[in-house]
Amino acid sequence: MNGKVSRITSLYQKKNLDGLLVTNPSNITYLTDYLSRDSWLLLSKKGNYYLTDSRYTAEANKYLSSRDSDFFVYKKTAVPLNDCLKELCQQLKLKNLGFEGNNLTYAQYSKLSESLGKTVNLVHTHNLVEDLRLIKSSAEIEKIRIATKITVSALNFIRDFIRPGKSEIEISGELERFIRYNGGMGSAFDIIVASGPNSSYPHHITSSRKIAKNELVLIDIGAEFQGYKSDLTRVFFSGKISVLAQRVYAIVLKAQQQAISRIRPQALTTVIDQAARQVIAKNGFAKAFGHNLGHGVGLDVHEAPGISGKTATILKKNMVFTIEPGIYLPGKFGVRIEDVVLVAQKGVEVLSGSLHK
Amino acid sequence: MNGKVSRITSLYQKKNLDGLLVTNPSNITYLTDYLSRDSWLLLSKKGNYYLTDSRYTAEANKYLSSRDSDFFVYKKTAVPLNDCLKELCQQLKLKNLGFEGNNLTYAQYSKLSESLGKTVNLVHTHNLVEDLRLIKSSAEIEKIRIATKITVSALNFIRDFIRPGKSEIEISGELERFIRYNGGMGSAFDIIVASGPNSSYPHHITSSRKIAKNELVLIDIGAEFQGYKSDLTRVFFSGKISVLAQRVYAIVLKAQQQAISRIRPQALTTVIDQAARQVIAKNGFAKAFGHNLGHGVGLDVHEAPGISGKTATILKKNMVFTIEPGIYLPGKFGVRIEDVVLVAQKGVEVLSGSLHK
Repeated sequence: MNGKVSRITSLYQKKNLDGLLVTNPSNITYLTDYLSRDSWLLLSKKGNYYLTDSRYTAEANKYLSSRDSDFFVYKKTAVPLNDCLKELCQQLKLKNLGFEGNNLTYAQYSKLSESLGKTVNLVHTHNLVEDLRLIKSSAEIEKIRIATKITVSALNFIRDFIRPGKSEIEISGELERFIRYNGGMGSAFDIIVASGPNSSYPHHITSSRKIAKNELVLIDIGAEFQGYKSDLTRVFFSGKISVLAQRVYAIVLKAQQQAISRIRPQALTTVIDQAARQVIAKNGFAKAFGHNLGHGVGLDVHEAPGISGKTATILKKNMVFTIEPGIYLPGKFGVRIEDVVLVAQKGVEVLSGSLHK
Repeated sequence: MNGKVSRITSLYQKKNLDGLLVTNPSNITYLTDYLSRDSWLLLSKKGNYYLTDSRYTAEANKYLSSRDSDFFVYKKTAVPLNDCLKELCQQLKLKNLGFEGNNLTYAQYSKLSESLGKTVNLVHTHNLVEDLRLIKSSAEIEKIRIATKITVSALNFIRDFIRPGKSEIEISGELERFIRYNGGMGSAFDIIVASGPNSSYPHHITSSRKIAKNELVLIDIGAEFQGYKSDLTRVFFSGKISVLAQRVYAIVLKAQQQAISRIRPQALTTVIDQAARQVIAKNGFAKAFGHNLGHGVGLDVHEAPGISGKTATILKKNMVFTIEPGIYLPGKFGVRIEDVVLVAQKGVEVLSGSLHK
């Protein structure tokens, strides 16, 4: 049994469950080391089953059976997953089955509950696999490192391409192409290219707007490598930089530096958040920085730990997350600077440290 | 009030609901004509509210308030959506609130139910907005037409690029770039480029595999235009075509033609499915065609109606869906041919009809 499967098995058994239904695709990929799509995973002491449909069975058989014997690909895939699950629960005599409340819709839950009837007790579990994913293994860190390296190269590549007359969407097209020519599977999310006033919307949808002279261009981008993601933001200028933009840029950069300098094992996420937020507030822009300071990155581009003022998480070695303060001046422009950091034995490593700011 | 909002309002009122919580992003986009992200929509007789967080409020205010007055962007966005909703329910004195079971997770439902307490009765609704989306308006058809036209151009463009030595992921990179240079917002889904034996996996993940001589290359791609999607599949050959591949190709093409020829208002989806499946079965490949024949396309790349042998839906004018029979020979190759069709007044229009097969 691979280490991850034995750890999750002991976790659900401690909760007096004799099985766990994993429906979060990233959790399934984490446990199986296989890029899961449209599948469920049923873990039990008597066997771990990968349930999918005919579009994926041949591929799943090839990858899951060739690597280890932790998982059986369930064969009867012409019938709905619900029916497969019912059959398996009966076969394995499961009584208490945990499920992931964050990844089963209310409708799926209702159907499942009806189909399983009274013989199986469905138990809502919270972040069992997600908690394991908080601390990255060296293999995971290596993949995030590569995803980050590809993203850094993409941002270095695009610098010379940004000039008046080019449209946001053309820039995004060049970046999408670059990622795939340089080892990435694709983008971790829709690339944000926000020029001029569009940059004042933190999550602008990349448009056909053409860059004008002396404008700011914000690019938020992440490559994906073997399922693992990165997430970086840089701001470029198509000419002269206004005094206000220079000032805002310097404040955001200082806020980020202050936050990063406090990252180490045992530090609280709320303290990290406060360090950045204070710099921005002290300069009179408190209301212009509404979003969280950062978020975990791994198999999901947004995962735990959240870095905000709301929930205090104690940082541990090998957590990976973004630090991305921003200042947005509606109708004018916005600045965000985002890096991916790794909590190291004694302090922090900025995985995107080589990228110019 | 726009026509869509008044139609959905009368639908939920007929169910004795005094409000409807819309959480499906495509449903929100459909009702608001605005590309929704991370938002909820609360519909009620006393007002329709768009709830989102600080990353989107400025943009939402700009787009939703400038076009019509159907929607108020709810201002208190520093607090969680749950709390906003509670406040609004109290303010609007809602007693029976419908929700979308397909788009609220079990955990979200539990939280919401706890937060709203006993004063609000949460009622599971099924496909209220989705049922409206089944029949496309002429404005929607026009957007799907444009998305399809861009996809057709992309497949025509890539034809000359496919040759031995090129990798699957390079082809996908060129296509991603092309879509963005030719009016598309991006891809509707991860483009599938499956070469040689990889094409035998219906949903192969595009890899760094290089195309060899005399191989088959399957490309499944869809562009997105103003939120609307397309979805087409074509098979290319990097040299000579084997006799078996020629035969399989001809069978799949005939299966598709048989299915398409039966599409008209009042036809049953099961009959359409059967028409294709019979051709494939008659030629001895029944087991090599495991997936559904097609699916609706619109704001979602997979939406109603499903075209399969399982559920009989009566076709109506202005439904849009794919027809995509396939034959997959594990370890050898696979062939799928996919077009997007529109149910017309008297028969069918193949929106991707100009693309060579």
